Amino acid sequence: VNRFNDLYLRAARGEKTERPPVWIMRQAGRYLPEYRATRAKAGDFLGLCKNPELAAEVTIQPIEILGVDAAILFSDILIPVEPMGFAMTFDPSPVLDPPVRSRADVERLRVPDPEESVPFVYETIRILRRELASRVPLIGFGGAPLTLAAYMVEGKGSKNFDKLKGLLYGDPRTAHALLDKTTVVMERYLAAQVRAGAQAIQLFDTWAGILDPDSYETFVVPYVRRILDALRPLGVPLVYFAVDAAHLYDAMDGCGADVIGADWRLPLSEVSRRLSGKFVVQGNLDPCVLYASPETIAARAREIVTEGRKAPGHVFNLGHGILPDVPVDHVKALVAAVKSA
Amino acid sequence: VNRFNDLYLRAARGEKTERPPVWIMRQAGRYLPEYRATRAKAGDFLGLCKNPELAAEVTIQPIEILGVDAAILFSDILIPVEPMGFAMTFDPSPVLDPPVRSRADVERLRVPDPEESVPFVYETIRILRRELASRVPLIGFGGAPLTLAAYMVEGKGSKNFDKLKGLLYGDPRTAHALLDKTTVVMERYLAAQVRAGAQAIQLFDTWAGILDPDSYETFVVPYVRRILDALRPLGVPLVYFAVDAAHLYDAMDGCGADVIGADWRLPLSEVSRRLSGKFVVQGNLDPCVLYASPETIAARAREIVTEGRKAPGHVFNLGHGILPDVPVDHVKALVAAVKSA
Repeated sequence: VNRFNDLYLRAARGEKTERPPVWIMRQAGRYLPEYRATRAKAGDFLGLCKNPELAAEVTIQPIEILGVDAAILFSDILIPVEPMGFAMTFDPSPVLDPPVRSRADVERLRVPDPEESVPFVYETIRILRRELASRVPLIGFGGAPLTLAAYMVEGKGSKNFDKLKGLLYGDPRTAHALLDKTTVVMERYLAAQVRAGAQAIQLFDTWAGILDPDSYETFVVPYVRRILDALRPLGVPLVYFAVDAAHLYDAMDGCGADVIGADWRLPLSEVSRRLSGKFVVQGNLDPCVLYASPETIAARAREIVTEGRKAPGHVFNLGHGILPDVPVDHVKALVAAVKSA
Repeated sequence: VNRFNDLYLRAARGEKTERPPVWIMRQAGRYLPEYRATRAKAGDFLGLCKNPELAAEVTIQPIEILGVDAAILFSDILIPVEPMGFAMTFDPSPVLDPPVRSRADVERLRVPDPEESVPFVYETIRILRRELASRVPLIGFGGAPLTLAAYMVEGKGSKNFDKLKGLLYGDPRTAHALLDKTTVVMERYLAAQVRAGAQAIQLFDTWAGILDPDSYETFVVPYVRRILDALRPLGVPLVYFAVDAAHLYDAMDGCGADVIGADWRLPLSEVSRRLSGKFVVQGNLDPCVLYASPETIAARAREIVTEGRKAPGHVFNLGHGILPDVPVDHVKALVAAVKSA
């Protein structure tokens, strides 16, 4: 008889656990041959996101192959943005058309009902809860407003985010209007994920690290806080993860999360210190360490587990998404090392 | 009669100055119509770097157009790398072929005599010293070993630097051999710049910020220190600038520089605090602020001047290179604001 593995949920709630739970950002991904086979059936990435049966299938693969302690919904942070009024393609990085550059562009954006505009997300979650019920918890997720706004304003990825920052610094009222509208969309989108069955929510803030602390407190913290405060009554653990944000930990205090994700740029003891010891931390192996030998990977994993013990709680993860060409055996070595640490 | 403006040299040496000197990274660049005209004469970017008369011409343009307090040699950090054994093209970002992936690749690399392999660099410097003698000092520059190794190993720009990190973490002996050889090349290349007339040297470490502090202390600090120690007897101010390195300032203490450049990610008072108050700081306006109004630009510049007063010394600059499409009038407003702050 399978017994439900609630290790992730206990750790994310700040309970003491026998070892840190481990999952891997982008664990349903191209490094897995099984993922590539399912994706081929779906046609393309966006087709896979929008097909509940196949999205559920790739979500479950790493649970069975790697034995990680949590599943994360297979989707993309831009899924709820498309119905706000964009044509969206992946080439392979996302392109949103037309980009948002003016106040009129912001006013044109819709605030769609998520269950009507992206029903496949909730259907995927319902399938997953049935199939995972006796195994591991399901993490839902979304993008933080600044990161989503970055894609909406740039229209695609960017090196310097000059158009986004041009808006933030040159026309802050329009920037706030865009962030406000995006926040409303995300509150509804994520609350519906929890109602459909997501047992935790992680907010990804991929681009927050491009800002200085003052701009972060102005353009990021209040919106993240609104979303997490709206989710708080639903009773699930709330995780906030900003990449390349070592200079921002001091300012993250007000974001309203239970767990703060960290990339590899600082040891977890230092991350926790900068967070005033108030948060469970998640992370933080450099994904590139997975190119080294299994022995090196295991040694680094043990160091991180030791570091994590200096925080109020620890969820083991990489410091960013797993890369597409790492050997699966190396990933298994990582999971084994964390489980035996 | 022109009087030589030594404000930059005095500030970089740690002397108290009446105001911070100001220059702008990539001040000879595409945002200037005069630069674009000269570059068209040279054919392409690499042709411009290798043509002493035209390289000197674009170096001087921002002195005359903007009135900045220092000139910086027009060149590229990869100029001394090409003769180590690469075919180099710009597309528009640099491509080095063949990339370095093994110990045999490292051993194949040459350590060329810089005055024989890149004589145009030194000829440009000699022309500039004649033409700038009564105006402003000339800054020479080069890339720090890790950043140059990043290009050599990846062969081009990279998002995750997985091949570089695969080498650092998977085969550290080969990584150290590459960094060592690059350090020897850079010691000679930069010492010859000073002998030709460069009055300060800035070492650019564009990619150091991808490392955690332990890896930075292992793969960056000893090599930067060797280069700067080798230059120290030549008596010119030495500047070290790493991008996206807010998590590394504590570890920069041992790098042997006089001046530490900072990007915009932390206020200069905090940068200086993390550097234990031992260094003159350089920076740090976000280049994207130059898209805002001249009033906003001036206000931000004044804030940074105020922040800089909390450090042992301050050289005003952007936090990264100027972007290609900012209005020249906005750059002039910045320089005026610093001069009157």
